[in-house]
Parts: sequence; C-alpha cells; structure tokens
Amino acid sequence: MSKLRVQAFGLSVDGYGAGPNQSLENPLGVGGLAMFEWIFATRTAAQRMLRTEGGETGIDDDFAARSFANVGAWILGRNMFGPVRGPWPDESWRGWWGDDPPYHTPVFVLTHHPRRPLTMQGGTTFHFVTDGIESALRQAREAAGGQDVRVGGGVSTVRQYLQGRLIDEVHVAIAPVVLGSGEALFSGIDLLKLGYRCTGHTPTARATHVLLTRHG
Amino acid sequence: MSKLRVQAFGLSVDGYGAGPNQSLENPLGVGGLAMFEWIFATRTAAQRMLRTEGGETGIDDDFAARSFANVGAWILGRNMFGPVRGPWPDESWRGWWGDDPPYHTPVFVLTHHPRRPLTMQGGTTFHFVTDGIESALRQAREAAGGQDVRVGGGVSTVRQYLQGRLIDEVHVAIAPVVLGSGEALFSGIDLLKLGYRCTGHTPTARATHVLLTRHG
Repeated sequence: MSKLRVQAFGLSVDGYGAGPNQSLENPLGVGGLAMFEWIFATRTAAQRMLRTEGGETGIDDDFAARSFANVGAWILGRNMFGPVRGPWPDESWRGWWGDDPPYHTPVFVLTHHPRRPLTMQGGTTFHFVTDGIESALRQAREAAGGQDVRVGGGVSTVRQYLQGRLIDEVHVAIAPVVLGSGEALFSGIDLLKLGYRCTGHTPTARATHVLLTRHG
Repeated sequence: MSKLRVQAFGLSVDGYGAGPNQSLENPLGVGGLAMFEWIFATRTAAQRMLRTEGGETGIDDDFAARSFANVGAWILGRNMFGPVRGPWPDESWRGWWGDDPPYHTPVFVLTHHPRRPLTMQGGTTFHFVTDGIESALRQAREAAGGQDVRVGGGVSTVRQYLQGRLIDEVHVAIAPVVLGSGEALFSGIDLLKLGYRCTGHTPTARATHVLLTRHG
C-alpha cells in the first residue's frame, strides 16, 4: 500500500519547522538551515544533495537514505519550489536546485496559479497543481506507480496534509537549535486526536529522530 | 552568583509541558507522566522521589542528580502545589507529596490567596506568595543563601519567568511522547529574542536532554 510520508523534517527545540523571514538567501528562514546539520553531514546528502564525495555513514545516514527510499513522487508547497509569489510573471524560475534537482521523480507543486509542467534533468518533472491538496495527492499517487509519496514541505503544506488525516508517517529530526519564531510545525494540531503515536525514537549526537505513525 | 534554573522539565515531541485535563488523578494532565519515564528510571529518583532501592545510573541519572544539586529554594505555581482553586477553604491540603516532600528547602508557592507558611518534615517549608513572581524570586533568593533557585513549574509559571527574562538556565528533557493538547511550553515565546541559546544536547534512549542558557 502506497504511503504518504513526511521525512527528514527539521524541528527546533522550540517547535519551529522553519525560521522567521524566509527569503531568497534564507529559504528555511533565518537560522533554519541549522536544523539540517545532521543530514548535511551524511553520505546520502553528499551524494544526492551536495554532489560531493565523502559524508558519514551511521544512524543519521540511515535516516537520510530511508527518506529517499521507495519514493515515487513528491508534493511541495509553492514556497518550497521558489520565492515567487502571486501569478507566475514568466517561466524563468525553475526551482532552487539548478538543472538537475534532487528529486528524480514527478514533483507536484501546490499553487493557485497555473503553469505548464517543467521537465528538468535527471527525471524530475514539476507539475503545478491548482485544485487543492487532495488532487495533488491523487495525481502524485498515480505518478508514483505503487511507491510512496513524500511531502517535502514546507511547514504549511505538512500541516494541511496532517489536518486532512492524509499523512501515514512523519519523521522529524529534532535539532539542538532555538529559532525563537517562524513557522510552528505542530502548534494547534492535536496529533493524538488525529491518530498519531510516537513509534520510534533514535537519538544521535546531531539530532533526535522521532517517528510518528497514524493508526486508524 | 545564584542562578534561577528550570530543571528536568518534560517536553513532548509536539511541544507540550503538560497534557490536557489536569486533575487530582492526573496532575500532569492526561499522558503527562509519560514525559518523565526517563527520570523515574534513575537512582536519583528512586532515592529522592520514590523512596525505593535501585534505579539506574548513567546520563539520565546525572541529569536527575544535577537537577537537585545546589538548589537552595524552589518556586512553584499554585497548581503544582495542589488541585485546590480559589481561596483556601482550610489548611487541610498539604501538597501532593505526603509529610516529607522531596524539596528539603523553602518552597515559594505563587497564589492569589494568602495562607500561613506550612512546615513539613525533612526541611521543606511552603511559603505562600501573593505579590507576584518577582517578589517570590526575591524571597527565594534570600532563603537560598547563595545557592540557586529552581522553578519547579508548572508550565504557566515557567513561561512567566521566561518572559520576564529571569531564568538563567533551562534543562528540558524531550520525551518520545505525543500529547496532542495541553499546555504548550514555548509556544509564542521568542526564546532567541529573550537571549537563549542551545548550549547542550545529550540524547539517551529515553529522552533528549537539551540545555538553554540566557546570554545578556
């Protein structure tokens, strides 16, 4: 059964999934990048995200690798695709990631403003979905061909899918970071009532990996 | 220099310091006790809180022992002293802990309703403070005789002292627990702006110990 998964999502000690003042320079908000030190140190990140040699193996790397495994399609909120707001002025913005984004699958981008699909190198195609999160999920499941669908973020997108009881599994990595303000990940969402339980807890020197799984 | 410290404070993955529906049966709210499994397993808790033999040594125990070390006075919110609300009907409620509470120091209880000091066995005396958190801190510092003052909780009391920039150090133990609702510990408090930085991160199998220290 194809699952909808959130993976390798950073969470600060004070509960934020992104810092304040997101911008072109700080896509994760001020300080937000510090939540991901654990993953940038891994071999998986070196290979898949940073295109460098090296990187560490171990628990953090296992979680990094698992976050990409068996993912047949992604869903992203529009702000995770780029900083452009409102109607697309043209088609020049092609994502944060250059010509060969790290997805290598179809990616469904939630937006209110239509745009033609955008085919990148390496198997990534961005599809722009204007009719809501359930439609995006339906399309992503179909594109995933039996594999899982990963919700990449941002915080607002994860929250919408959580509140819709659509996410099967959440992996958050709680980092030793205080952000002070920004986008709170779980604030005001009753995870218990939505059916989530804590089903895994694996701490490392850089982060505490927590799994939440929905039952019923 | 005498510090004001929060120690061994439980925090759920979804950011709560206490669960919903606090009552006589569930002083920490429904599910709240699960945040403290790490401390109940320790030798320090066995000796100081549970009055039993045994208990584990190790990192969790080090944090438990540290939470009591060099503490010369405590401050508690009234709901942490007991379930009685409004004016004291009589003096029959003497705390949750029996004749010999685990404090063994003067304890300053924040309340709007005056009451005579209450001397228990083992060195604990409860003083009831009706003129606010700064007065309680002043009295506690004087009583502590150069040692530190520990804010025992609950959540609302910790939040008030944080917002007043009065707390020097916070030790939270993030437990692998989802509470869903209850009292959010840091929600809406800009820890970064208040001067807190994450200065320690020590995970164990049962909890992730995080230290926050105020600079300036």
